[in-house]
Amino acid sequence: MDTNHRQNYQELQEISLKTKLFMGISSILSWDQETMMPVGAAPIRAQQLKAMAGLIHEHRTSKEFRKVLERLIDIDTGKILATDLTVPEKAALVRWRRDYLHERALPQKFVEEFAALTSQSQVIWRKAKEKNAFQDFAPYLTKIVQMIKKKADYLGYEDHPYDALLDQYEPGVKAKKVSELFHEVKKPIVELLKKIQSKKQVEDSFLFGRFPTSKQIAYGRKILDAVGYTSEFGRVDFSSHPFSSSSHPRDSRITTRIHPTGVMSNISVLLHEAGHSLYEMGLPEEHYGSPLCEAVSLGIHESQSRFWETRIGQSKSFWSHFYPLLQKTFKTQLNTVSLESFYKAINKVEASFIRVEADEVTYPLHVIMRFDLEMELIEDKIRIEDISEAWKDKVETFLGIRPDNDREGCLQDVHWSLGAFGYFPTYLLGNLYAAPLFLAFSKDYPDWEKKFAKGELLFVRDWLSKKIYRFGRQYDSVELIENATEMTFSAKPYLDYLHDKYAEIYG
Amino acid sequence: MDTNHRQNYQELQEISLKTKLFMGISSILSWDQETMMPVGAAPIRAQQLKAMAGLIHEHRTSKEFRKVLERLIDIDTGKILATDLTVPEKAALVRWRRDYLHERALPQKFVEEFAALTSQSQVIWRKAKEKNAFQDFAPYLTKIVQMIKKKADYLGYEDHPYDALLDQYEPGVKAKKVSELFHEVKKPIVELLKKIQSKKQVEDSFLFGRFPTSKQIAYGRKILDAVGYTSEFGRVDFSSHPFSSSSHPRDSRITTRIHPTGVMSNISVLLHEAGHSLYEMGLPEEHYGSPLCEAVSLGIHESQSRFWETRIGQSKSFWSHFYPLLQKTFKTQLNTVSLESFYKAINKVEASFIRVEADEVTYPLHVIMRFDLEMELIEDKIRIEDISEAWKDKVETFLGIRPDNDREGCLQDVHWSLGAFGYFPTYLLGNLYAAPLFLAFSKDYPDWEKKFAKGELLFVRDWLSKKIYRFGRQYDSVELIENATEMTFSAKPYLDYLHDKYAEIYG
Repeated sequence: MDTNHRQNYQELQEISLKTKLFMGISSILSWDQETMMPVGAAPIRAQQLKAMAGLIHEHRTSKEFRKVLERLIDIDTGKILATDLTVPEKAALVRWRRDYLHERALPQKFVEEFAALTSQSQVIWRKAKEKNAFQDFAPYLTKIVQMIKKKADYLGYEDHPYDALLDQYEPGVKAKKVSELFHEVKKPIVELLKKIQSKKQVEDSFLFGRFPTSKQIAYGRKILDAVGYTSEFGRVDFSSHPFSSSSHPRDSRITTRIHPTGVMSNISVLLHEAGHSLYEMGLPEEHYGSPLCEAVSLGIHESQSRFWETRIGQSKSFWSHFYPLLQKTFKTQLNTVSLESFYKAINKVEASFIRVEADEVTYPLHVIMRFDLEMELIEDKIRIEDISEAWKDKVETFLGIRPDNDREGCLQDVHWSLGAFGYFPTYLLGNLYAAPLFLAFSKDYPDWEKKFAKGELLFVRDWLSKKIYRFGRQYDSVELIENATEMTFSAKPYLDYLHDKYAEIYG
Repeated sequence: MDTNHRQNYQELQEISLKTKLFMGISSILSWDQETMMPVGAAPIRAQQLKAMAGLIHEHRTSKEFRKVLERLIDIDTGKILATDLTVPEKAALVRWRRDYLHERALPQKFVEEFAALTSQSQVIWRKAKEKNAFQDFAPYLTKIVQMIKKKADYLGYEDHPYDALLDQYEPGVKAKKVSELFHEVKKPIVELLKKIQSKKQVEDSFLFGRFPTSKQIAYGRKILDAVGYTSEFGRVDFSSHPFSSSSHPRDSRITTRIHPTGVMSNISVLLHEAGHSLYEMGLPEEHYGSPLCEAVSLGIHESQSRFWETRIGQSKSFWSHFYPLLQKTFKTQLNTVSLESFYKAINKVEASFIRVEADEVTYPLHVIMRFDLEMELIEDKIRIEDISEAWKDKVETFLGIRPDNDREGCLQDVHWSLGAFGYFPTYLLGNLYAAPLFLAFSKDYPDWEKKFAKGELLFVRDWLSKKIYRFGRQYDSVELIENATEMTFSAKPYLDYLHDKYAEIYG
């Protein structure tokens, strides 16, 4: 081992650690903005986030960082010079270089302005959503789309500007590939939906009624304890759009949303966001500062959240254990409802307007619709002022229903206000990744249903830790899934799962 | 007007504004640490705060900052070069220079290590307090005192190292002056206390009983609304040691502590902390970045909090309005208690262990005692391991009672864990400043009692804004008080007030 390489690697990790500290601080500020901050502080918070974004950019593109990095890897060609480092370390160098090239492509001023604009836009979006007034948000969206296009130009791309945007969230995956995958799943899903719509609808009225918030909070805590989401390193708050926010493996917070008239929203959200946070909490802390203590991509992140939310939280065996507890908590509402009826109810398929509340079958269609819209926006095929109507048209085409307002239409999601174009596809990629992963899991634990039925869930986290968490960004998403599952990645397990599960439920 | 001076001044404010943003971010991190942060995140938060402290120090001592500053004021001699700036602007230059000299005196490494140590120590202190185990905190206190002495050396002083420490919190005031002032007030207060102790004690048992937390919160909100503490720019949370934390005039948060068995603690704390936050909220935002949008000193800060807590919140006229509302909120407990009895009860004088819960007469003795102890520590007249007993001895000498544990002794306050030596004297200075200030206020509003009795309080904030808030750091503390009161500052108004008020209550 060349001791210089070892020393340089350590130095690189130390420099990056400081940058990570600042990124963690930014996460806290954003979390605070969504959960705690007094509303009048919005303008100053925008300035604070802008200053942090500038600082982080400065650090990520500093000469000091470059100097150490280029001793280990050739920045122009990507050739690894420190060939005697370990395999994971060499993978880390490749990621560090990729991040550096991306970061260097964006001028500091652009980064700061983008941070200030999106911090402000979030506040405007929230108010516009409350008032159901797209026109209030439209001028901000216009500016955001302009900056997004500029960003794609700065980042560079071969085929399509969308590739540059997508690459920020799902490195290595191209818009063309997404388009093909989405095309492949869209048709069978639409057919499945049609078949389901021709069947007798399941009864779910008992999921709605009076479910006092305090009881929902206490019940939610039990589920979080069972899955291993500990309050030693996390906490649960409320926000308009639930999220998981991690500033370090030891500080990974989630938010939820409770409807006092519906029992399932809080439970689904908690499992989903805990899925994200468990991933972050499970990253190998000893590599903090290096890509080996970072999540691979948003698609992999989403595979984790959907794994817990849908594959576990909408399974019959999970509820074999948790349903009796739920009945006990909400006696008057659920005492006479059987486990079988409950299971069918929480898997009811029905076209609806809100993506995050959609069932497993219509969910992918929501995502594909947003992907189509974003492509049209980037390609200038649609004007901002037409978004509200275009959204409604798309929902009608995909789902056969039409929203009559923007709160349930184009204002429902926070992402555009965050400037997060290219983000939506990862929601469906996550589902696609989760399917083969669950197959592999069930092969490793043929008795998983028995364990779930006893309320045992910590072994799932441990399995995911072994297969996913501990690698950090050592592999790209598809590679990681293929390693974990020992299968070639395809959409088949996902389509099979949906078909088999819903064939059984709807007969 | 020399346009260069104008431009340079603006540039100086812009550079400083960025530093202020980072300082505001640090405030949010500290606030989060005390109120929201998962306990397991303590080590990483210490690192984050250390990184921010280093960054702030870097900015405050940067060549860029110095270059612009020295165009306006001679850094070595303090001679103002930009003589054509306005009087407040010239005062700002003097403060900027003073801050720069202080900041430059501290090595970056020292600043970072101090931030990390005190962030960690707070967590240790909190646990030690819970466990009532001074020995757990002692090793940290040892390190802190070592660093504090080093800090005094770095900062420099003429007569006594304590001057350097005090100067951080109360610029321009020396340990000798404090010692004289404290000596001047100690004797008459001890005599007053003795006289009171010879009289019949007032009855206050009705202040203790069952006061449900949720009702206390709602009642507290009414008081906050009345004094003008708006949730648009603030929020209220809970913490072990209540505090006010401001990251900007538009984001100034407070915390409180509620005893479900006592009604007054929450009310006093809210008025106290709101007093601090109203000051911060009232600073002239247009000068954000310059000393003209900063508080003068901790003594002036404390004059504001005590003004609201004691001079208003323990006055009969305030309660003429608020007591009927309190009776309505807690019927069973207070229905048969008259306003007169209530007023006497909340002003009951009795030696006790906890400073923040002390009455107005014993409060100054708590502060003097800590000042004496800190002086002994700095002068190496006492060893850390003897602090626990020395504290108990001091309490016995000053108040005639002896705590039998550290939770009610030397572990009661957060300050030492924060490394805030030199801070305590400002608590008494604040009371001393508040007295002439209230005299001046009552001259400007001879009908203040009538107004209070109608629940009118916003005019107090507006008066303070005119006399205190709007000047930022244009004046030093004594100068500001003398300007506001048109009197030479002395301890007399404070001693007169205590004497007259308690002579009436205790006959």
